[in-house]
Amino acid sequence: MNISFTQNPNPKQKPASASELKFGTIFTDHMFVMDYEEGRGWYDPRIVPYAPISLDPATMCLHYAQEVFEGMKAYKSPAGELCLFRPEENFKRLNRSSARICIPPLDVDFCIEAVKELVKADSGWMPEWDDTSLYIRPFIIATDKKLGVHPASHYLFMIILSPVGSYYPEGINPVKIYVEDNYVRAVPGGTGFAKAGGNYAGSLLAQQEAAKKGYAQVLWLDGNSHKYIEEVGAMNVFFVIDNEVVTPALTGSILPGITRMSAIEIMRSWGLKVTERAVTVDEIYDAGANGRLKEMFGTGTAAVISPVGELMHSGRQLVINGGKIGEITMKLYNQLTGIQFGKGQDDLGWSVKI
Amino acid sequence: MNISFTQNPNPKQKPASASELKFGTIFTDHMFVMDYEEGRGWYDPRIVPYAPISLDPATMCLHYAQEVFEGMKAYKSPAGELCLFRPEENFKRLNRSSARICIPPLDVDFCIEAVKELVKADSGWMPEWDDTSLYIRPFIIATDKKLGVHPASHYLFMIILSPVGSYYPEGINPVKIYVEDNYVRAVPGGTGFAKAGGNYAGSLLAQQEAAKKGYAQVLWLDGNSHKYIEEVGAMNVFFVIDNEVVTPALTGSILPGITRMSAIEIMRSWGLKVTERAVTVDEIYDAGANGRLKEMFGTGTAAVISPVGELMHSGRQLVINGGKIGEITMKLYNQLTGIQFGKGQDDLGWSVKI
Repeated sequence: MNISFTQNPNPKQKPASASELKFGTIFTDHMFVMDYEEGRGWYDPRIVPYAPISLDPATMCLHYAQEVFEGMKAYKSPAGELCLFRPEENFKRLNRSSARICIPPLDVDFCIEAVKELVKADSGWMPEWDDTSLYIRPFIIATDKKLGVHPASHYLFMIILSPVGSYYPEGINPVKIYVEDNYVRAVPGGTGFAKAGGNYAGSLLAQQEAAKKGYAQVLWLDGNSHKYIEEVGAMNVFFVIDNEVVTPALTGSILPGITRMSAIEIMRSWGLKVTERAVTVDEIYDAGANGRLKEMFGTGTAAVISPVGELMHSGRQLVINGGKIGEITMKLYNQLTGIQFGKGQDDLGWSVKI
Repeated sequence: MNISFTQNPNPKQKPASASELKFGTIFTDHMFVMDYEEGRGWYDPRIVPYAPISLDPATMCLHYAQEVFEGMKAYKSPAGELCLFRPEENFKRLNRSSARICIPPLDVDFCIEAVKELVKADSGWMPEWDDTSLYIRPFIIATDKKLGVHPASHYLFMIILSPVGSYYPEGINPVKIYVEDNYVRAVPGGTGFAKAGGNYAGSLLAQQEAAKKGYAQVLWLDGNSHKYIEEVGAMNVFFVIDNEVVTPALTGSILPGITRMSAIEIMRSWGLKVTERAVTVDEIYDAGANGRLKEMFGTGTAAVISPVGELMHSGRQLVINGGKIGEITMKLYNQLTGIQFGKGQDDLGWSVKI
């Protein structure tokens, strides 16, 4: 399919300093749009001026949240090349998310082409300050104008771009995490593995209550026994216990993170033992008490790697590595961001030139 | 607050026959709209011509499903009066749904006034055929133009109206239900008790698979043990075992239906024993096998009462009451619809005149 292009005749003012780049608040001059109709398939791919969309009040996604999304970034290398990080993994995951809530699949290669075309069109929006990048948000919404609870026959696939600042403007520092004992994010058989809107709406209240108590994020436990560790806010989670790296296995209720997958592959390439298995909170607290818990960190597109310095569970505080960033955590952050920003060795061919 | 009114200068053609009234596909000439901004509260309530709304592609509800809704109906009595059924219960529930996903509450009395004003404005859309009504859909969407995962600071509250036909154009007949063993709708600690969009997106796949096998709806089991009965599709569920009526207790994962609540109160007023407690699939199959299961039915706004004639669980078929509608089911349907349509005795004062 050929992507048509309509130049924005009224380009916006670009941010003048890195401090203006508050995450996901500034958008570029163009957006990618494509329609779907049952029987016809996906059609009319186009890059058009960024603008509001017009939706009937009865549009299905406004009532029944039949909507999925992805999050990825474009980076600029020191040589001035624009690069993506493993974009095929994002669109494979988008299709898995879609399948769970009856949204038709997209062609992965075509989506990568669409991202490349859009980033090229708005390449002037790539911020030039340290550790900044262009956040890419592909999403699909159901657009039938009907209130019956059925999968829609019409969808809109869009991609928008947002210049984003450094996640760590004051340097990478460990965060404090609240272990959530009351609210549940997902269970096997549900939608936890999908980047479906409903998972995020359901997480807001726990996140808000934890923030009021002074914690940066929530650590979710399994919805059945409330014993097993699932994920941190919008990140997957890893523990270094003795000389082994441990992370919760993907059981259907956890988001299969692309940074998670990449972190596992990199650490294994270093010769580290990385195990995906069930992990209880008690095991982590015990390992902390007897000195075997060396490091804890989260992985996600936004932060890449986020060291965790403290956990709070049922009134019990656990300080990890003296509240300081660990050696493996730091090394992993440097290697991943090195590949993403085109500054380091990319032996695995994860960086894709635009 | 005063509700401003803008007359629609271009009224649409109204449906010419009951057969045109496919659920939730036709909308009236006006809609109610009200805005919310943090610090200012809800403001500018208005009835305006029904029209599409303009949303930035980054609008929060399109990504993170911070959205809740309600469903209720207006009926016309034989005397020509327009009536609502327990509307305060709908808006109390809307506030409980909102609280779960960090949406600010609405004033219940004001919402009922808004519904009355809107129904009056579009009273010409009340269909006149047997068992038809005006479906009322209040909903709230988060409208911040931001991609950060935080509760929004801006919301839109809307009410739209849709003339709907009889749920049983060919007479009330028992349905066949598939007991879902694989997919999970909700668990305690999640959002199951809320009319939040994400619950409905998550239910589409199971519903689609059951429909392919020839079943009208899915019976959801609990997400932990997959043993306990929760609810049927968009309905609560009741069983008559010997001379007792049994329905799953509200544990946080089940929608607290207003028809459910009303059915319980009516049956108790008849002197029947109605028990809200945990119910397993095995108990129902055992009661079916030894002749103690007399009736099964669902309750919901759309169908009011829906008799169930057959269950299918792990390849085991259970026919209930010979596949025919039961005595209590029929009596309950008649009494509830009698109150709603203003044809029967309304001792409990549930019908509210507009």
